Amino acid sequence: MSHISSLSRLSTPCLVLDEAIMARNIARLDDRLSTLGVSGRPHLKTVKSVDAAKQVMARAKGATVSTLREAEVFAEAGIADILYAVGITPQKLPRVLALRAAGCDLIVLLDSADQAEAVAQASREAGQAIPAVIEIDSDGHRAGLRPGDPAILEIATILASGGAELRGVMTHAGGSYGAQGEAELVAFAERERDAVVAAATALRATGHACPVVSVGSTPTAHFARDLTGVTEVRAGVHVFFDLVMAGIGVCAIEDIALSVLTTVIGHQKERGLILVDAGWMAMSRDRGTAGQTVDQGYGLVCDIEGRVIDDLVAIGANQEHGIIALRSGSHAGLPDLPVGTMLRILPNHACATAAQFDGYEVIPAAGDGALRYWPRFRGW
Amino acid sequence: MSHISSLSRLSTPCLVLDEAIMARNIARLDDRLSTLGVSGRPHLKTVKSVDAAKQVMARAKGATVSTLREAEVFAEAGIADILYAVGITPQKLPRVLALRAAGCDLIVLLDSADQAEAVAQASREAGQAIPAVIEIDSDGHRAGLRPGDPAILEIATILASGGAELRGVMTHAGGSYGAQGEAELVAFAERERDAVVAAATALRATGHACPVVSVGSTPTAHFARDLTGVTEVRAGVHVFFDLVMAGIGVCAIEDIALSVLTTVIGHQKERGLILVDAGWMAMSRDRGTAGQTVDQGYGLVCDIEGRVIDDLVAIGANQEHGIIALRSGSHAGLPDLPVGTMLRILPNHACATAAQFDGYEVIPAAGDGALRYWPRFRGW
Repeated sequence: MSHISSLSRLSTPCLVLDEAIMARNIARLDDRLSTLGVSGRPHLKTVKSVDAAKQVMARAKGATVSTLREAEVFAEAGIADILYAVGITPQKLPRVLALRAAGCDLIVLLDSADQAEAVAQASREAGQAIPAVIEIDSDGHRAGLRPGDPAILEIATILASGGAELRGVMTHAGGSYGAQGEAELVAFAERERDAVVAAATALRATGHACPVVSVGSTPTAHFARDLTGVTEVRAGVHVFFDLVMAGIGVCAIEDIALSVLTTVIGHQKERGLILVDAGWMAMSRDRGTAGQTVDQGYGLVCDIEGRVIDDLVAIGANQEHGIIALRSGSHAGLPDLPVGTMLRILPNHACATAAQFDGYEVIPAAGDGALRYWPRFRGW
Repeated sequence: MSHISSLSRLSTPCLVLDEAIMARNIARLDDRLSTLGVSGRPHLKTVKSVDAAKQVMARAKGATVSTLREAEVFAEAGIADILYAVGITPQKLPRVLALRAAGCDLIVLLDSADQAEAVAQASREAGQAIPAVIEIDSDGHRAGLRPGDPAILEIATILASGGAELRGVMTHAGGSYGAQGEAELVAFAERERDAVVAAATALRATGHACPVVSVGSTPTAHFARDLTGVTEVRAGVHVFFDLVMAGIGVCAIEDIALSVLTTVIGHQKERGLILVDAGWMAMSRDRGTAGQTVDQGYGLVCDIEGRVIDDLVAIGANQEHGIIALRSGSHAGLPDLPVGTMLRILPNHACATAAQFDGYEVIPAAGDGALRYWPRFRGW
């Protein structure tokens, strides 16, 4: 039995993961980080699966998460060093303390004196120093303090003197998702390094140890050339890759490990449209390639074996209807795909598409053609 | 205890449903349909909750669903008349037959001779006539056959002579979501009626009974003036309403029953940004108001009591970060909302936002301030 005949028996839409491609993607970044002499701290918000996390974490010491629910699930699965990389609120500190009491070295993130006061107060009340890293803004993307902002030293002092622990500094060059080409990506990676190294240097000059100096985004992780002064790199979507990453130039289409298996449900022949049962409920509403050079609509269409069909994209999506057509301007002929034909659609954004499903139908890297199922979780 | 103090104790982000507003929205459409002399066949893809469906179905005979999983869950909960309103595939017919064998009058949808052959064959093999409605295209939106297309009679003959059952015709004016103002909405409703009544008339002229003549979308359901010849109306998002529906003019902002409760996690004061813990994982990536007169970003921001804060919108979203700012051109002042402040964000598209959560935190229409929890389901 081949894995194609296994796929053909699945109910659609469903989420297909090619384990061999995933393993190659994980190894690619791990090898890079080894060469650069830094640790990886993979972001597990992409996989949200204990089975997948085991492979992602094989060569990593710590993990990154985007929700306390992720921290709780992965801590339960044995991951003992976790950075919760979203700004902490006072209300969330009881769950942080519970995780730490259960043996997980959970680190929180902050960028204001108010948050530092709350973390220090909770540490004192619990008789346990909560470690925090200060978010540094390296590219004006979202959160964090600019290196040189006096608030950085103020926060460090509140933490250290208030009963908490200053673990270090981190930045995320989210702006790199809008980059194009090698030179821009290299520049984003240099800005990440420069920003956190400057902040760490200033903190150490005033007596703070600052052991963690953390950078990362999937684009910068793959284009950084020199990470002197950096201790760890975070990335998440590199595990699966997607059309947005291919559009930026971080991966090739063949590196995309994730796809949505779907079935043709109808046609509008005069208008050149093929309807499938993967709408936005399956693909997500993410249109991350809309601003890129090649707009892939709601996804690039492949046959059931995962081979791209020339110029065929999901040009529209309703809740449970995907609308497939040739890319605007294409000279290819619309293929004959009768009702019942199964296809696979590559996602714009792997994190968003995967989140629409309860688990992965995994094509194992080796085996007899039988699929495996890896459950996902969600929630906060 | 007030329901506000109950809300303030929830972990964020979470999904809040105001039951009193929902009840008013349901009654509004039910009353309209009574006046127009037609039945409702509510679309349960919006609520995906047995608890909510009980209220939606109180005055309706049949239901509409968008997945077989919805059909299975709602049939199990006692709803015995269900239209699966997405084009049927041969692979899904075993599940259809299983539901029918369990006592649910499940109706399938099709618009091609190939699908009719498959339904007829499955009916013969099971010794049980599967009922089908033919999809009619009233506005060029997506699927279906134009009234007058000879394929309609061909399909009817294949079904009736092949052992299946022609139950009737249906249309969905999905194009009405792009309408603006009363005149356009009334016109869409008239096109829906004209298209299905013409198709039903042609079918009856050739001896087919065609008992079901079904129209519907939330905008047309609220603006139809005359439904002579129509037997039932489908709508779904009217239960909760959302910013897209308010933008079209189908409801007021005060009619939106659904919101995402969130907490402030940081600021970029110089840039006028407030960060919250509701990113696109909570709001969804739906940007349905982007093409409307008023672009509401990823949602319109309210205080914890649900009162709109002037001109405050979620201008951006990352996976777990919402970015809030004053609407472009606003003269309002940015409110002071310290880290830990709780807010509620109204969604662009209720179906998409609700799908990001496992359940509703329900503010009951009456009670002592305690919230209820209504679980949601998902999957296919």
